[in-house]
Amino acid sequence: MKIAVVNPSFDEKIRAQIEAVAKEINYEMNFYKNETEASGHLFNADIVFGYIPSIVSECKQMSWLALPFAGVEVFLKPGVLRDDVILTNSSGAYGLIISEHIVMVLLMLLRKEAGFVKGQLEHVWEAPVWQKTIKDSRIVILGTGDIGGNTAKRLKAFEPSKIIGINRSGKINTKFASYFDEIETIERLDSVLEAGDIVIMCMPATKETNNLVGQKELEKIGQDGIVINVGRGQALDQELLVNKLNRGELYGAALDVFLQEPINKDSKLWDTPNLLITPHIAGKLTNDYTIEVCVKIFLENLKRFAKGEGLSHVVDRVKEY
Amino acid sequence: MKIAVVNPSFDEKIRAQIEAVAKEINYEMNFYKNETEASGHLFNADIVFGYIPSIVSECKQMSWLALPFAGVEVFLKPGVLRDDVILTNSSGAYGLIISEHIVMVLLMLLRKEAGFVKGQLEHVWEAPVWQKTIKDSRIVILGTGDIGGNTAKRLKAFEPSKIIGINRSGKINTKFASYFDEIETIERLDSVLEAGDIVIMCMPATKETNNLVGQKELEKIGQDGIVINVGRGQALDQELLVNKLNRGELYGAALDVFLQEPINKDSKLWDTPNLLITPHIAGKLTNDYTIEVCVKIFLENLKRFAKGEGLSHVVDRVKEY
Repeated sequence: MKIAVVNPSFDEKIRAQIEAVAKEINYEMNFYKNETEASGHLFNADIVFGYIPSIVSECKQMSWLALPFAGVEVFLKPGVLRDDVILTNSSGAYGLIISEHIVMVLLMLLRKEAGFVKGQLEHVWEAPVWQKTIKDSRIVILGTGDIGGNTAKRLKAFEPSKIIGINRSGKINTKFASYFDEIETIERLDSVLEAGDIVIMCMPATKETNNLVGQKELEKIGQDGIVINVGRGQALDQELLVNKLNRGELYGAALDVFLQEPINKDSKLWDTPNLLITPHIAGKLTNDYTIEVCVKIFLENLKRFAKGEGLSHVVDRVKEY
Repeated sequence: MKIAVVNPSFDEKIRAQIEAVAKEINYEMNFYKNETEASGHLFNADIVFGYIPSIVSECKQMSWLALPFAGVEVFLKPGVLRDDVILTNSSGAYGLIISEHIVMVLLMLLRKEAGFVKGQLEHVWEAPVWQKTIKDSRIVILGTGDIGGNTAKRLKAFEPSKIIGINRSGKINTKFASYFDEIETIERLDSVLEAGDIVIMCMPATKETNNLVGQKELEKIGQDGIVINVGRGQALDQELLVNKLNRGELYGAALDVFLQEPINKDSKLWDTPNLLITPHIAGKLTNDYTIEVCVKIFLENLKRFAKGEGLSHVVDRVKEY
């Protein structure tokens, strides 16, 4: 069997770790830094570990595609991936790092920190401004999986009045259950939201989550409300959010994902008041912890594959995650 | 008895709350927005609730000075405050808000967030950069009181490998005890520190804490080490810190307090790489929670004072806190 690993973030140490497992099970292993380097070499690979949207059609012999990311939507579009290819993702590798991003941007919004960073760049000792705390705030987290759960765990320590999780089933039975005060279904989102809520969006991109947070939801949280989106740009009415921020009808927002990425240099997004923009970096393969978990998921699956056992992290192509 | 309240942050609602208690105990109450407005009116005040360093000498009849802040050093200098004046502070009102600042700047340093804020200001979609997480990090907190304790509580949820508290006694018996893995004395600081440590400084300004973190300490934590100072500028060798950041011999630092404040426009501090500067705003009377606790401490003491009972939050002028 031939394995191809396509990833710019894997250093020599990580490559050696993968190679060692491949040797154990007598599989051939090839490494490529990126899709350009891999192109033309994947026609006879049985297993590909990498995010390869531009060359996936070259993989004629592939029976398993292991993605180093959590998002899979590109590969679910009709005609992209043969139906008989097993698709796995790396959900669970990013929750922790993304939850740190979420806590950081939330505190930056509450404390109006961007203004102090600007002050430092301009050598200005800015005067104090009015600030808010997480203490006694009401937090609604859309998505109760690895990202939402890790976020609830961390935010709980800041003593909010309530953390409400929103998911499809209205139930949760993971190790994160105790950090949520309530779990509600997506259908109930509208009635759950209250004025001043902090809304954290970390659901996968599916048809169901398109424009999940729109006019009704933004109006309910109102001028003291905060929106943080690390999920997918489509889940939020971005145009309306910007208008509301411009009119002071929202307290603040932090977006890591957008309808179109990268944002154009002349986009009105950049200068929207109380909007914190990050360039889709909330969860990247740019830290030791995520790389470690991501590789561990793949290698455990690789051993299962060699033994003919069922794999973990298999993407349900109907549910889309 | 006459009470004078000097504070720009107290709105009508807060004033009414104080007034109500004063009425109960038949004390006269006067409000002033600041020292300029109060000057000339404090000669016959028995109780002053305010930070009034420039006019403290006018208070000939004062028997109790209640400070709305935690720091008291100005009033401990010889000749500033008569020995028979009871001095109380508001320690406990700022720990929570300062701990939120500490978690925020730590995450900003680990995730190199200042670069992304700059990117937004310049309309640039920055590329991802290498990041670190709090997970599995080693954290040393200098000061285990209200600030250090609240910080340990919050950081514990981020799964660091260890949180070590440093104080005078090497012991802790507060509600925060369970969030520290170890407590060590100041004398042991040097042997406690290890390469890559995150050092958080939140001790009061006393003679003992002058230059507490200097050459030996900074060398021990080394190029992966992080320093956060929200205590007092004197506790840190600021010049050396800047040199080490310029030479890449520290991972990063976040300072909210400085040897001289405000920082001059042409100071080399502003542009020091991996240094996050905030203008002494980690803990201010600029949020509802801190104002609420601060006023509560004063009013509970006021009731005790009227009954001739001993006060809480009395500053020990020998220990200096």
